Parts: sequence; structure tokens; C-alpha cells
Amino acid sequence: MIFASDNWSGASERVIAALGDAARKGGPAYGADELTKAVERRFAELFEREVAVFLVASGTFANALSLSAYARPGGVIFAHREAHIQVDEAGAAEFFGGGAKIVGVDAEAGKIAPDTLSAAIARFPAEGFHHGRPVAVSLTQLTELGAAYAPAEVAALAKIAKAAGAAVHMDGSRFANAVAGLGVSPAEMTWKVGVDALSFGGTKNGCIAAEAVVFFDPTRARDAGFARQRAGQGFSKNWFIAAQLAAYLDKGHWLDLARHANRMAARLAAVLRQSNKSRLPFEPDGNEVFAIVETAVDQRLRAGGAMYYPWSPESLPVAERPGPGEVLVRLLTSWQTTADEIDRFAELLG
Amino acid sequence: MIFASDNWSGASERVIAALGDAARKGGPAYGADELTKAVERRFAELFEREVAVFLVASGTFANALSLSAYARPGGVIFAHREAHIQVDEAGAAEFFGGGAKIVGVDAEAGKIAPDTLSAAIARFPAEGFHHGRPVAVSLTQLTELGAAYAPAEVAALAKIAKAAGAAVHMDGSRFANAVAGLGVSPAEMTWKVGVDALSFGGTKNGCIAAEAVVFFDPTRARDAGFARQRAGQGFSKNWFIAAQLAAYLDKGHWLDLARHANRMAARLAAVLRQSNKSRLPFEPDGNEVFAIVETAVDQRLRAGGAMYYPWSPESLPVAERPGPGEVLVRLLTSWQTTADEIDRFAELLG
Amino acid sequence: MIFASDNWSGASERVIAALGDAARKGGPAYGADELTKAVERRFAELFEREVAVFLVASGTFANALSLSAYARPGGVIFAHREAHIQVDEAGAAEFFGGGAKIVGVDAEAGKIAPDTLSAAIARFPAEGFHHGRPVAVSLTQLTELGAAYAPAEVAALAKIAKAAGAAVHMDGSRFANAVAGLGVSPAEMTWKVGVDALSFGGTKNGCIAAEAVVFFDPTRARDAGFARQRAGQGFSKNWFIAAQLAAYLDKGHWLDLARHANRMAARLAAVLRQSNKSRLPFEPDGNEVFAIVETAVDQRLRAGGAMYYPWSPESLPVAERPGPGEVLVRLLTSWQTTADEIDRFAELLG
Amino acid sequence: MIFASDNWSGASERVIAALGDAARKGGPAYGADELTKAVERRFAELFEREVAVFLVASGTFANALSLSAYARPGGVIFAHREAHIQVDEAGAAEFFGGGAKIVGVDAEAGKIAPDTLSAAIARFPAEGFHHGRPVAVSLTQLTELGAAYAPAEVAALAKIAKAAGAAVHMDGSRFANAVAGLGVSPAEMTWKVGVDALSFGGTKNGCIAAEAVVFFDPTRARDAGFARQRAGQGFSKNWFIAAQLAAYLDKGHWLDLARHANRMAARLAAVLRQSNKSRLPFEPDGNEVFAIVETAVDQRLRAGGAMYYPWSPESLPVAERPGPGEVLVRLLTSWQTTADEIDRFAELLG
Repeated sequence: MIFASDNWSGASERVIAALGDAARKGGPAYGADELTKAVERRFAELFEREVAVFLVASGTFANALSLSAYARPGGVIFAHREAHIQVDEAGAAEFFGGGAKIVGVDAEAGKIAPDTLSAAIARFPAEGFHHGRPVAVSLTQLTELGAAYAPAEVAALAKIAKAAGAAVHMDGSRFANAVAGLGVSPAEMTWKVGVDALSFGGTKNGCIAAEAVVFFDPTRARDAGFARQRAGQGFSKNWFIAAQLAAYLDKGHWLDLARHANRMAARLAAVLRQSNKSRLPFEPDGNEVFAIVETAVDQRLRAGGAMYYPWSPESLPVAERPGPGEVLVRLLTSWQTTADEIDRFAELLG
Repeated sequence: MIFASDNWSGASERVIAALGDAARKGGPAYGADELTKAVERRFAELFEREVAVFLVASGTFANALSLSAYARPGGVIFAHREAHIQVDEAGAAEFFGGGAKIVGVDAEAGKIAPDTLSAAIARFPAEGFHHGRPVAVSLTQLTELGAAYAPAEVAALAKIAKAAGAAVHMDGSRFANAVAGLGVSPAEMTWKVGVDALSFGGTKNGCIAAEAVVFFDPTRARDAGFARQRAGQGFSKNWFIAAQLAAYLDKGHWLDLARHANRMAARLAAVLRQSNKSRLPFEPDGNEVFAIVETAVDQRLRAGGAMYYPWSPESLPVAERPGPGEVLVRLLTSWQTTADEIDRFAELLG
Repeated sequence: MIFASDNWSGASERVIAALGDAARKGGPAYGADELTKAVERRFAELFEREVAVFLVASGTFANALSLSAYARPGGVIFAHREAHIQVDEAGAAEFFGGGAKIVGVDAEAGKIAPDTLSAAIARFPAEGFHHGRPVAVSLTQLTELGAAYAPAEVAALAKIAKAAGAAVHMDGSRFANAVAGLGVSPAEMTWKVGVDALSFGGTKNGCIAAEAVVFFDPTRARDAGFARQRAGQGFSKNWFIAAQLAAYLDKGHWLDLARHANRMAARLAAVLRQSNKSRLPFEPDGNEVFAIVETAVDQRLRAGGAMYYPWSPESLPVAERPGPGEVLVRLLTSWQTTADEIDRFAELLG
Repeated sequence: MIFASDNWSGASERVIAALGDAARKGGPAYGADELTKAVERRFAELFEREVAVFLVASGTFANALSLSAYARPGGVIFAHREAHIQVDEAGAAEFFGGGAKIVGVDAEAGKIAPDTLSAAIARFPAEGFHHGRPVAVSLTQLTELGAAYAPAEVAALAKIAKAAGAAVHMDGSRFANAVAGLGVSPAEMTWKVGVDALSFGGTKNGCIAAEAVVFFDPTRARDAGFARQRAGQGFSKNWFIAAQLAAYLDKGHWLDLARHANRMAARLAAVLRQSNKSRLPFEPDGNEVFAIVETAVDQRLRAGGAMYYPWSPESLPVAERPGPGEVLVRLLTSWQTTADEIDRFAELLG
């Protein structure tokens, strides 16, 4: 009953096999191998347009590399106040942005509202140099609270961002779960609604360490190759990422894995919704389930072997926060979650 | 009627004369001159203890140099969401902190409340590396909204900061006005209540370009000399800052200048309070006056030659914000403000 | 006949199998897994003392993370003018060092001589702040030109470094080949002769992407965990590095692989020495062979399928450089090189 | 007898008076004042073309700001191995360049030769990402050893730089002495021969703290305003630099001051050349005089009150270095040096 995080999962057999095959062969260093080139081309197909792709080994660096392409002296990045780039990456975006500033904005279920974004941006007006200037808006898809932005919602935010001269970045560490959940195409989810750069995640959904930064305007990627190299993520055996992603993207494997995780989340949500020991503050759009559980039940679940994390009640609007004797918890499913795990959880929950 | 900013003021005659005298002489480069050494000693007297002092030419750099002494990978600085370091320094603290993160916290009249600080810090718990870690709390004295923290208020915040392993920085660009307003000693306002590093301002209060970074624990200053040098603020003719500060600190000149500015602010506040065209959302503690003025009156004042800036209504609690037909404005007085200017303003205000 | 680089090799079967096993299991994220902990302990055994170990995925980042532990404002790093950190890492050490300076020093066969180091350091005397200050000396073992520093040579350089307040870093991307070649213990090669931090390489010698930064004084490692995290090399599935290194270090596998590579280099060197078409400017100490070859022969070798790179003649003392009709080339062997490849090369060479 | 450095000098009366006048007035903050605007226009006249000008307070920051405009990930700057940016600025160019690399190249009398530059650049070929890429060549005018590059010499180096994609920066901390010495126009010395950005010095030649960064291609300056602000050199009372430079540039004052310093240097050089106690390794082109002096005489001069610094013999070609019983010394004259000082020096020298 591992619901701690989807990054506690292992890797799919197809990914493992592809990596083993590549590792038996070796090949030209620093991305000059055929596997890397093929995967880069694969992304163009997937997104139905020319793109500049940079394979990297972690989501934190994918975000930092994406955002660094828009960093400039005085640059300000806007993101949800609990965005991964703000509270979970040890300052990577600031560091790789050469001292970029992130301004955290409020949001329900992690989805930033247009008015909130406009107000936050208004604090950095284009007069003189001292305020700095907006350079990027970063949206997490799925959000840190499990919601998916609909394409029209992304479009509305992108319009505001661009009016202020800021690019739009999407942190897609759970991009697969969002695409699977919304039933839209990768293109509809990104550049067609104004996304400029995407952190395309593989690690949480069946890979070992494989992410891709996708720039939809390849001219903005002119420094990214050097930036990746000096970060030590231009690997000599770069095929180790390419092999994973090749298998991941082949024949829709990535979406099959994500659909499974989402189905398991729906099943888990149903269990929690139906129990009189717990309730859902909102419905999951992907593979992240948030629930308010009685404290005693929470203890019983943990004692029984369920692994998951408590979550800050401040993530919820005041009216929806846990009351006395209740806790807010986060449960994640993954491509590796089994129906049996959820059945056991249901039993413990009572 | 210049109430735009105290940094629109010139310099006091004593400061001008001292700078001219030093400039006729010249002397050993890079701070080896006698004037610099004397001023550094003067700060020890002023603060009644051994200190490490670094003269610099701007408040932005004073803040950045102070905070950089506490910067570490993953380090998080907490400050008011409208603090100068957050919205007016083009990302200096992030840059000189090697990619530091500033988290903006809410506050009334710019004064952070203990509970708000605790909640903000709680988002960066000491588990694993991904959250980063609190390294500093920066308090502005006077705040950006003109309030002065009482020593006990600083002490309460310092206690929370230190429990989380964070240092306390005071942005004292208007330190003189705060000391003059509160009637406490520099020591009582700083290290005696837990302040570790101070940006001591001179520029806004009679100097041209003269600030000092004061570290109350000299061992924390071990990198500051090199950090200042590589920032290009270890000046070859360093005596140009020392000469200003020597005159500024001599015979209480700095406090005389600040007291004048504060008196002018009190007089201006009285004018605004008594008019039926305007009201004060809160009383000034120093030389910054915030007022809610009728829009038509605001236009008349400007047309009549009064110079000042509108201010974001979001700086006020919802209940106190300007209503329809009203605007929030900020008016600053300085050591150079005259009673005549205020009388003319009063007349225009009606 | 791949002699282009040892990083063109694949991974050993043991490493592949270990990675597959770990990937089937998954586990707690961000290095909290058992495999990571076990490998960290394994390094203490290997080096016969307490150490602080940080697993990372590339040699470039291993070097940058090591050196960043000693970086301070104004800090100067001394390294061979052709050191990997100077000419092959796109400025990683400067970047992660927050703007560190690398001063390149001359050396024969890549081995810095004590007098040369002393002279280079003397340019950065401890007077005032403007020169900066020495913070580290970085030695490559094997050097970029294939030589191995004997322990006594390291000790002599370390003495000079430390007298100037600088730490000693060893770039051990080919540490295994050096240890195998010299027949000394890892401890004798490092901390016993003054090395403070080691980049311990696995990637070039049978792993896929696995390196370790080893700090012999664990107190200097206090920021490295955060620095690694914000660089995006604190992987969620950190076990992917640990699994590789566990297999690599198990039962001397790493030294067996290196001994094979070295033997193949010796065999290749013998072929080149004995041919009248080529000569060796110096003998290899590990798995890097430099040779001066007739231009026509060089073309024949390449046409026949031998893969290797030309090398800058300026790497050699003037008297030993290739003459007209000759080129300097670099040939690397690896754990994957076969005797058959060398026999075919010998035949082509004639 | 102060020949320690021209930065030990004070400021000219005209500069002091102009600064006093401005300081009595004050004015709009952050460079919105009329004085700043006028000086910015003055530079366009001086250089006979449209330029983008940024006033700053130190030469170190002028260099760093100039070079930062060309900095990119992986970027390499080439400069003389004893250039001020390499050995005297505590790593400013690396820091403000976001981790830029400086490669020091050899040169006689500080003047880089075309072949040496070509060879240094050749180490960073445009293949893959790991070598990084040339972004700038920085030339010091006057060089650190007192020589002036003739315009044709600059042109030859600029051609090589540009062929490699690198910009040309001129560190003109003694630009006035070079222009005065060579008798060419500012335009002929800079953009007409390929210089892209100039650090125009005022501090060493009669100002207190006043330098200007001049970009000859204003489109490259798009980030410089923000970069200056976040460095804390976008001063609130920016007029303090403008006032100095206005007086400095008015009616050729800057060249009059420089011509005086150069004349004093020529007189000092004559004294040293004619004495049998000393000799000149090369003739001065401006206000820097290098001499080889008998050790006993050196001691007598210092005992008699002459202030100057010894210099590293390695700055000279081996054949020209001081022999036993001799030392190499550097003597600088300034706009403030008097003929009397030189007569007294001559007397002491004997």
C-alpha cells in the first residue's frame, strides 16, 4: 500500500529492457548516438510540430533548464505558492536562472486564477529597472494538488503572461496523467494554448531517470545545450535517457501507464468518498488523491502498512480545512499500484 | 512640494564639505585610508560593541551583501511581500545570494506578525534536501509602509527565526528615522533584540551615496570583504563613502536630520488627518505618510505641483482600502523638506 | 576498433543486472533507500575511514560539486591548462562555484610540477581583497594526457596548496585506471597524501551514469546535499546510481575492469612503439595512449575503421611535437576493448 | 612622491565643485535626472555615434557589466594573464557573467599578439557543448604594463575575435591616458577598429568614483540596465556620477588631466633612463613607468619617501628580467603628480 509518491515506483519492464539493450552496445558520447537523435525526432511527431528537445535526468533540472531559457537580469517567475519549483527544488530555478526571483501566488487546488495572476504581475510594472520584470509564468500540470488545467484555462493565463512579456512554462512531471485524464492531445495541452516550454516527465510514470525539456520555439533554445552541459546533465552516455524515453513513448506505453495510475486513483477516491471515516475536499483529475481523514483512522491506516504523507491544511480554502480530529492527507497512485493494494486500504479504512 | 521619495533629496552641507575635503587629499586605495578606518571604529561606538563594518555605496547592495553572508545552497529568505528586497531591487538578494529564494509573507503596514512568520517558515521543514532551508528573515525598519517595529516586536520575530536556524537582517535604509521615531538606541534596536546584520542607511537622510553593512557577529563577515570587492563596491577611492559617513555620524547630525524629516511627516499627517478630503489608514512612525485622498483632490494636488506616488490598495487590509472615488497615496518627507512646502500642500488640499 | 573514448563503452553485465533488479523494486525517494545507504557505507570501507559521499550521475557535476564545497567569493582554483574542468565542462566549476575563477597552469603530460604551482599561486597574494584568494588545486588522476601522479607527487603539491589555504581536489574520472596502474590503495592515492575531495568515476569504466563525490573531511560537506539537490542531481530514484556502484564495487569488479583496460592500452602502446610508422612521446600509465603517427598512416587507420581523435601538439613540449607529415593522436582503451581490436589495428598500422 | 597608483589621487577642483552643486539640488531618483541624461548624450558626441551608456561607480563593475552583456552559458573570455579582470577584481567578471570563464593568455608588456590569441581560442572549438564557446576578448588600454595598443593592433585582434564569434571589450580604466598618448580620437580607438563595449574610466584621472560603460551596439545593452540595478549600481542619487563626468568631459578637461599625467611619466622615465642606478625594460606609452632598479637604491628611494610597488619579474620576457641585486618596480603618475615630486625622486635616485 505505497501511496507515498509515484516516484517510489520502479520502472516498467519495457523501459528496463530498452536500457539494458542500449547499455550492452554503448555508442558515441554526449548525445551523438542514434538513439538520442531518434527520440528527439519522436518528440516532433508527438507534438505535431518542430521542437527543440533536451533530454535530462531529473524533473528538477528539467524545470530549471526550461526556465533558465527565459531568465534575464531582474527577471521574475510567477508560480503557485506551493509549486514544486517554489517549495521542493531547493532553489534550482533561482540558481540556474542566475538569481531569478520566484513570486508565489495563491490558488485553489493549485490552479492559478487569471485575476490572481494579473494582480501578482501588476506588482512588477515596467517603469525603471528596480522592480525587475516578468519573464515567465510556470504552471504545474497536474497541479501539486492533483487538478488538471483545461486547455482553455491555460490559454487564459498564457494571454495574461504574454501581455506582460512573460513566457509560459509547464511543469509536466505528471504530464502523462494530465493528458490521459483530460483526453486531449499533447499539442492541445501545450503550444496550441500558449505554452512555450514544457518539462515532459517520464520518471514518475515508468522510467528510472528520464525527462525532456521541450521548447516549442526552437530559437529560444540556443543556450540550452551549453546550459545543460555545464550543469553536468549533458551525459557522456546520453543514450541512457534516450533508451528509456524511446520505450516509454513507443506504441502509447506512456499513456497506458498513466491511464492505469489514474484508474487506480479513481478507485481509491471512490473508497475514500464512500467511507464515513473520510471525505474528499475535491475530486482528483489524475493520480493524486487528497482526503480528509479522521485522526484515529489515519493512525490505523499507517499502522496497517499504508504509506502516504500528511499535507498542509493551508493548501485548502479556510472553509474546507480539516476540523478537530481530522487530518488532510495526500495519496498518490502510480503505474505500479495494484487493485489489491486499494482493496486492502479499503478494508483498513472501514 | 517634493514628497516623491526621500531619495530625491540632495546632501547636507556638512556632508558635501567633508566629501570635498577628502577629495582634495586623496589617499591609499581600497579602504586602507585613515578616514575609512576611523568610520569603521565609529560604528563600534555607535552600537556599543565590536562590529564588522563594510562601507558600500547603495542600499540595494547593502541588503544584498548582508544577506549573502547567510546564503547557502537551498537557502530561503523570508521578507514582507512588498519588502524593498522583494519588489524594488531587481533581484539583487537572489543574485548575490547565488540563487537565494525570497518568500514573501503577508503583513499589515509592512510589519510581519509572529504567527505569519511561523507559518511561512513551516513550509520549509528540515527533512531531506528538497525544501531547502530557512537562512534569514529580513525586516525593514521603517517598514515600506512607514511603521516602526518596536524592539520587543523584533525580538519576537528573531526568536522564531533563530529557532529555525535563520539569521535576522534589518533593512535600515530609514534606520535613522526609526531610531529618531522610537527614541531607542541603535543597540536596543538591533543586536540587543536579535538582529545579526544591519543595512545602515545614509543616502536617504543627507548623504549622497553612503551606506554601511554592520555585522554584529564579526565572524560571519569573513567573506564580505571579497564579496564586496567582486561586486565592484570595494572602491579604490573608498574614502568617498567614509567622508560622507564621518560627517553624517558626527555630533548626532544623522539623528538631527531624521528628526526634522519625522517632524515634517507628523505635520503633513496632521494636515491630511484634519482635512475632510483625505484620511490616514494608519499613523506614521517616521517620515512616510500614507493617505487616502479623493481622486479629484489628488488631481488638484498634482496639478498644483505636489509630487508623490500612488500606492497599491492591496497594501491595506480589505476593510481599509480606498473606496470608489478615492486613491491611496504615499508621501515622503526628508531632511530637506520645509514647513513651507507643507503649508502650500495644505492650502492645495483644502 | 573504438579508441575514441572510454565513454563510448557500454556497461558491464553485472552493472546492467543490478540496475534492472533495483528498477523492478523501486523504493523510497531521494536517497532514503537501502541501496544508497549501503553504497555510502561501502565507500567508508574502500577508503578506510569515515567519509561523506554524494552519488551523482556525471563526472562534470562530480567535479563541480566537489569544488563548490571550497568556493568562496574571490576564490581561485588552480588546474592544468588542459584539465577537463578547464576545457571540457562548459564552465561547470565556475558556475557551481558561484563565479569561481580557474587559473590554468602549464604542465608536462598533464602533471603539474611543484614550482609551476607555486608560481601560479604567488600571483594571488593575501593582501587586500582584489586579488581574490586560492581556494583549491584540482589534479586529474589519470591526467588528461594519460599520466598517473605518484602518491609522493600528490603529497608535494598538496603541501603547497595547503600552505596557501587551498584544498586539494582530485578529478578521478579514471581513478580506477590510476589505482590499477599504480598498484596503490585508494587511501594511499587520496587522503593519506592530502586529497580533500575526490570525484570517483564509474561511468567510463563499466557503469552507465554513476560517479561519487567523496569528502574525506565530512565537515566540509555540510552544503553538498543541498547543492546537489538544487542542481537536479538529488534524484528521486537515487537507487539507480547506487545499484550501479554497488555492482561496480562488489568483489573488486571495478579494478578488474580497469586492469583489463590498462592491459589493452599497454598492448596498444607496444604495437605503436614497435611500428616504424609511429612512436610514443611518453609511455601510458593507464588506459590512455598518445602516439605520433605518420599522416598517411593516420588516414589509412581511419579509413580502415579505427576510431580515435587527433590531439593538440601544444600538449607536448616543443622538442617532442610531431614533425612535418606527422600527427599527434589519442587512443583510449576501455573495459570493453578486445585483443582482437588491437590485433586488427596493428595489422592496419603495418 | 606618490607613485603607488593613480587611484591614490584625489579629485580635480572642477569635479569637486560640480558634485557639490548637484548635491545641493538633488533630483529625481534612479537616473531620471537631467544631469544623467545630459551626460549620456555627451558620450554620443564624444564617440561620434549612437551609443548606449551606463554610468557606474567603479572600474571593476564597469568591466563586469560590459562583459556580462556577452556572457552566455559555456562562455569563455580571453584576456592577458595579468589583466585586471584576471588578477585584480576578485572574480567579478566570472561572478557577473553567471560563471563565465576567463582564459589568461601570455603577452609582452600586456599586449596580446594575434597568434597567441588565435592559439588560445583554438582550444575552444565549436564542436559539441563541452568546450564552451568564445564570447569575448578583453583588451586593457593602457595595458597593465603601460603599453598602448595602436588602433591597427586592436583591429587585428578584433578580426580574430569576431571570426570566433567573440565580442571585443576594452578595459579603459586609463582610456584617457591612452587617447592622450596616442593622439587618436575616442572613435578611432574603439568602434572604428572593432571594439564593442568600453569601460570608460574617470576615477583614476580626476574623478572620485565615476566610470561609464559604453556599448557601441545599443541592441546589446538590453539587459544592462537591470543588471546594473540588481548589482546595486543603479544609484538612487545617480546624479552623483553624472555630475563628476559632466565636469570631467567638459572642455577637454579629461584629456588635459591625462596629458599632464603622461608628461610626468615621460619626465620620470627620463630620470630613470638616465640614471646609472636604473633602466627601463620598455618605454611608457602613458602614465605607467616600469623600471629595473638596484636593490639598494630601491631601499633608499622608499626610505626617502617614494611610494611605489615592486612588480613580478615574470611580467617580463626571461631575457629582460632583473638580474641579481635588481628589482622590477612600477611607478604611476597621475593628474596630481607634480614636477617637484619627480625632481625629489631624481635626487634620491642619484
